[in-house]
Amino acid sequence: MSGPDFDTWSREVAARMEVVLGELLPASRIAPARLHDAMRYSTLGGGKRVRAMLVMGAGQVTRADARRLEIVAAAVEMVHAYSLIHDDLPCMDDDVLRRGKPTCHVEFDEATALLAGDALQSLAFQLLAQHRLADEAGAQLGMIEHFASACGSRGMAGGQAIDLDAVGKPMALPELEYMHILKTGALIRSSVIMGARCGQALSQAELDHLDRYAKCVGLAFQVVDDILDEEGDAAALGKTAGKDKAAQKPTYTSLMSLADAKRFARELLQDAEAAVEGFGDRATRLREIAAFIVERRR
Amino acid sequence: MSGPDFDTWSREVAARMEVVLGELLPASRIAPARLHDAMRYSTLGGGKRVRAMLVMGAGQVTRADARRLEIVAAAVEMVHAYSLIHDDLPCMDDDVLRRGKPTCHVEFDEATALLAGDALQSLAFQLLAQHRLADEAGAQLGMIEHFASACGSRGMAGGQAIDLDAVGKPMALPELEYMHILKTGALIRSSVIMGARCGQALSQAELDHLDRYAKCVGLAFQVVDDILDEEGDAAALGKTAGKDKAAQKPTYTSLMSLADAKRFARELLQDAEAAVEGFGDRATRLREIAAFIVERRR
Repeated sequence: MSGPDFDTWSREVAARMEVVLGELLPASRIAPARLHDAMRYSTLGGGKRVRAMLVMGAGQVTRADARRLEIVAAAVEMVHAYSLIHDDLPCMDDDVLRRGKPTCHVEFDEATALLAGDALQSLAFQLLAQHRLADEAGAQLGMIEHFASACGSRGMAGGQAIDLDAVGKPMALPELEYMHILKTGALIRSSVIMGARCGQALSQAELDHLDRYAKCVGLAFQVVDDILDEEGDAAALGKTAGKDKAAQKPTYTSLMSLADAKRFARELLQDAEAAVEGFGDRATRLREIAAFIVERRR
Repeated sequence: MSGPDFDTWSREVAARMEVVLGELLPASRIAPARLHDAMRYSTLGGGKRVRAMLVMGAGQVTRADARRLEIVAAAVEMVHAYSLIHDDLPCMDDDVLRRGKPTCHVEFDEATALLAGDALQSLAFQLLAQHRLADEAGAQLGMIEHFASACGSRGMAGGQAIDLDAVGKPMALPELEYMHILKTGALIRSSVIMGARCGQALSQAELDHLDRYAKCVGLAFQVVDDILDEEGDAAALGKTAGKDKAAQKPTYTSLMSLADAKRFARELLQDAEAAVEGFGDRATRLREIAAFIVERRR
């Protein structure tokens, strides 16, 4: 496959997403201005845009239309932003810093942060229904159903509930894995599946391979987060390091040694790469993203 | 039109919605159980189900399929329940009673209430994408877009933001009306439009008549709420009476006399009835619902 190297490509995706999100989010001058400000504050200006990259990378497998992928990536990034806003609230993780900036409820207020998250979720579904994302409208309904399920009580929101319940309680490795499969894994899997569905039809076996890739990448993302949290300092992560440990939250590095956690992350990377082997060059970006997730330093 | 009288019909709708919602909400025994408990606690067992009635009543205009209407009504009631859960949180209205029961965050905890609301919004969209609601999938995408817009920053969530901003500030009648058109009106209008769209196609003029009806009914609902709040006592409303006044929230009864507010509600009822006159007998339930909203005592 031709195209820029991964560093250049990922910077291009991030820059393009900034433009796309900026256009799709309501302008600050539109009432209610403070709410729209808060939505923009928490969605724009940062993050690695891993989910957007996964949408784009999966779309390369099925040669999907670039505009469709941008819309899906924007919806996923909006839901991700909403989940972070709500996660940071005092009744949840009570975080004051996110990506080195004050969290939404610190910069605005709790009520505005709550509503900004709520409205970002609505906007994500609005975009997915409004723009043409698949050749058949019926297939698009299937994408929305998949995404809604990934957001809900047996997806991301459910994972957050299990995470909350786990504070201060012993948790075994299978339970921790189940929690992360819901909390971060569901949205990552939906990013990959929706990105692929924007393009040429895949067989169920091919979709299963992509789902296997996404599951491994989602888990690897969390394992590496725990490793970086264990090793990291506040400056590098832009959030309070060692916070999960202080809060007695179960992490991979509390349930296995640092060396074992690193080995596990490498195994997940190999599994992810193996899962998309059959797609050949069309899965180059997906392989690069997996490697990036495991090898990142922040 | 034949059929039971309005009292019987509205009780039947409420009873049927209890069954439908009970089936569509995740069972309490499914993990995460506490989250599912909270979702069921706040959605089941009460309320007037005005929005469900509006879906059903609008569906009679277009002779829509009963199952489609049930799914739409369930989605609307779930979003309504989520908005009440979030509205009752300490950072918003800080209410401890709702329909005579402890509010969700009192019965469970704040984090669970937050996530239950989030997951109810996701589930509403999941249902709207999952079940067949229109003859054409493209039309169904249009319904989801309409609904998402009604939920978002230029709909319900936006209205709540304006409401919050208004506490302790002077607000003129047009601003108060704008706030309510978003806060409660958007979801009510979407209930009517989606219910109608489940059935036979309507002309744009006919949809405009229904929208006019829904706009009047939505405003009337709020005006009557303010009248009852002004006149009411805590026992009758199941919530703290006079609370909006105590919180210095603008209300119709603070911006006009009680007599004027009652006259305004009656005018809105007449406007609503006039808007659906052309539908003849098919709009009987819609006329009855409008009268019920204006004449209710709680």
